[in-house]
Amino acid sequence: MKIQALAVLKSGEGLKPFEYDTEIGVNDVLVTLKYCSMARGDVRFMSNFWGDTNFPLVPSSEMFGVVEQKGSDVKDIEIGDYVGIGYQMSSCHECEYCLVGKEQFCHSQKVLAVGGFGGLAKQIVFDSRFVFKIPTELQNPNCVSLMCSGLTVYSAIKRGSPQSGMKVGVVGVGNLGHLAIQILNKMGCKVTAFSHILDKQSELLKIGAEEVIDSTSTDALKNCKNQFDFIISTSSKSLEWSQYISALKPLGNLMFVGLPEKEVSFPAELLADYAQRGILGSYIGSPTEMRELLEFAKQNSISAVANVYPVSEINQVVADINENKSNFSTVIDLSNWK
Amino acid sequence: MKIQALAVLKSGEGLKPFEYDTEIGVNDVLVTLKYCSMARGDVRFMSNFWGDTNFPLVPSSEMFGVVEQKGSDVKDIEIGDYVGIGYQMSSCHECEYCLVGKEQFCHSQKVLAVGGFGGLAKQIVFDSRFVFKIPTELQNPNCVSLMCSGLTVYSAIKRGSPQSGMKVGVVGVGNLGHLAIQILNKMGCKVTAFSHILDKQSELLKIGAEEVIDSTSTDALKNCKNQFDFIISTSSKSLEWSQYISALKPLGNLMFVGLPEKEVSFPAELLADYAQRGILGSYIGSPTEMRELLEFAKQNSISAVANVYPVSEINQVVADINENKSNFSTVIDLSNWK
Repeated sequence: MKIQALAVLKSGEGLKPFEYDTEIGVNDVLVTLKYCSMARGDVRFMSNFWGDTNFPLVPSSEMFGVVEQKGSDVKDIEIGDYVGIGYQMSSCHECEYCLVGKEQFCHSQKVLAVGGFGGLAKQIVFDSRFVFKIPTELQNPNCVSLMCSGLTVYSAIKRGSPQSGMKVGVVGVGNLGHLAIQILNKMGCKVTAFSHILDKQSELLKIGAEEVIDSTSTDALKNCKNQFDFIISTSSKSLEWSQYISALKPLGNLMFVGLPEKEVSFPAELLADYAQRGILGSYIGSPTEMRELLEFAKQNSISAVANVYPVSEINQVVADINENKSNFSTVIDLSNWK
Repeated sequence: MKIQALAVLKSGEGLKPFEYDTEIGVNDVLVTLKYCSMARGDVRFMSNFWGDTNFPLVPSSEMFGVVEQKGSDVKDIEIGDYVGIGYQMSSCHECEYCLVGKEQFCHSQKVLAVGGFGGLAKQIVFDSRFVFKIPTELQNPNCVSLMCSGLTVYSAIKRGSPQSGMKVGVVGVGNLGHLAIQILNKMGCKVTAFSHILDKQSELLKIGAEEVIDSTSTDALKNCKNQFDFIISTSSKSLEWSQYISALKPLGNLMFVGLPEKEVSFPAELLADYAQRGILGSYIGSPTEMRELLEFAKQNSISAVANVYPVSEINQVVADINENKSNFSTVIDLSNWK
C-alpha cells in the first residue's frame, strides 16, 4: 500500500510531498494520523545534526491516530482504537534487555528517522508492540508530547527514585523540562526550575514549580549547596555542572536527558566527598513505562502546553523551531491532509 | 590520661614521639593497639595534600587492638575484645542520615587526621559506636586494611548492585583495587583488572581476576565496548574515562573511589545513547556495612596482601610510600612500642 507523507529528500532541503510503499505485517497496525509533534530533535534530524539520519526523512517521533487495519497476530489493539506512537519502532523480543522489559536497550532495535518513516504523514504502519492505547482523557493535541518527550523524562525520573517530599530540580524548561516539572510535582516533590529564560516564571509556577532560579547565575547556584535529592537536566546548554553536582545532597543524582554540546567536566571528589553522588543519563523508556506514564498522566491531568498548527503551515513551524521561537510543545494537526 | 603516639607537628616535618591528654567518655573505649596501616592517604595527610589536616597529626586511619577499659554506656563491646577501628570517629546519631544507618554522610561527623589523633600510637580512645569486633579468623595484620580501604570499596561495590555472573572491572590495583578484586570475585562476578603495571598480572590472577588489561591502552579499551556491568576505579591517574564509560553495558555504572587528579570529562551522550549509564562516587561506608564486610571477609577468607614492618622502621616506610615503592598494603606492628 502507498503512504502519503512529507519528507526531506536530502540533508538541508525543505519538506516536500512524498509517497512510499509499505505493507501491513502480522504484528502491525495501520494508523490514520490525527496529530504529530515537531520538536528540536526533528529539526536536527532534518539537517543530519547527529550524522545518522536516513534520507528521505519523514520527520516526527510522536503521533496520535486511529487504527484502521491490523495484522493477524496483533493483540490488545483493535480497529477503531485511538492510539499513540513514539520513537522506538521495534526490538528483538529475545535479548537480555527485551526479556526483562527494557526493550529500549535492545541492540537490534529500530527507531524513527534512523530506521523508518515518521509521523508527518497521513498514515503509518507500525509494530503494534510499540503502539499504545490512549485513554479518552488524553485524546487531544496537548498529550502528543507524552509519547517520546514525556516517556524520556518519566523513565529518567523513575531511575532517580524520587519520593514524595523530596527537593528536586529541573534544568531547562522547554518541552522536556515543562513535562518533568509536572511529573515531579504530581509525585509530591518540591520542584525548583532552573532556567536562563526568566520571563517564563509565572507559567512555570502555574504548572508546578515552587521557585525559579537563573540557571546561569553562579551566585544563585552557590546558595543551593547540598540541597537537592535529584536534579534532571533537559538543557542542551553547557552549564557549570560542578555547581549542580555540589547542589546535590550526599546521595543525590544529576540526570542528563538533554545533551549539552560541550563535554561534561567536573572534579571526581564532588561525587565522593562526604557523599555518594551520581551522574546519570537516560534514553527514552520501555513500553511498560509508556503504559505507566499514560495512566499517571490520566490520573494527574498531565499534558503539554502545546501550540497547534495545521499541516499547511509546516515550513513556518520548522523555521520557528530553528530560530528558537517555539515555546514548550509544537503539534501539527494532520486532519486536513491534501 | 596520657597517650603515647608518633606525630607530625607541622606540615612537611617527619614523625616524632608525641604525647597527648585524653579521657574516656561514657561511650568510649580505651584500646591498646597491635597494628595500624600506612597508606598513600596517610602520607598525603602528613604533607597537608588536601589542605584540611589538623597538626599535630597522628596518622593512620586503620588499626587493630584490644579493649582495656570502657565507658559506662558502652554496649556490645567488652574489655578484652579484639577490635578494629577505621576512618570515621563520630556522628550525631540524630540526623536524616544517622537515623537510616548512613552515618558516613552525617554533616556533624568527625574523621581521623582532620578531627582527631590516629592509630600510629600505643593506645587510642574511641567512640565505641565506631569500634568493631574482629572475628578470630581476621585477627592478623593482613586484615587491618579492611577497616577503611576495604569498607570504602565494599560500600561502593554494593551501590553498584553487582550480581553473580556479572562482568565487572577494577581500575587500579593498589591497596583498594586488590581488595575490590577479591570482594567482587567472591560475589561471583567475572573480574577484569585494569592496570598500567603489567608485572602484577600473576598476583592479580591469583587473588581472583580473570584477566588483566593495560589501563592506558586505547586499542585494548576499544575492544571492551558495551561489555561491563560495573567498573570501579581505585586509581588516582587521569585515564581516558570516555573509553571506560563506553565499556559499560546499557545499564552499567562507573564508580570512582580513587580520585583522579584532573577533572573527569566526557560527552554526555555516552550516558544516554541507547543506554542509561551512570557515573558514581562513594565515600567510606556505614557501621552496618563495616559489620557486613567483616562477616563477608570471614566467610570468604578475604584479606590484604600486606607487608608488615616494626614501628621502629616507620620513617623508611613513609619514604617508600612517597616513592611508590610500597605494594598492596603496608602495616605497622605496634607491639614493640618504646
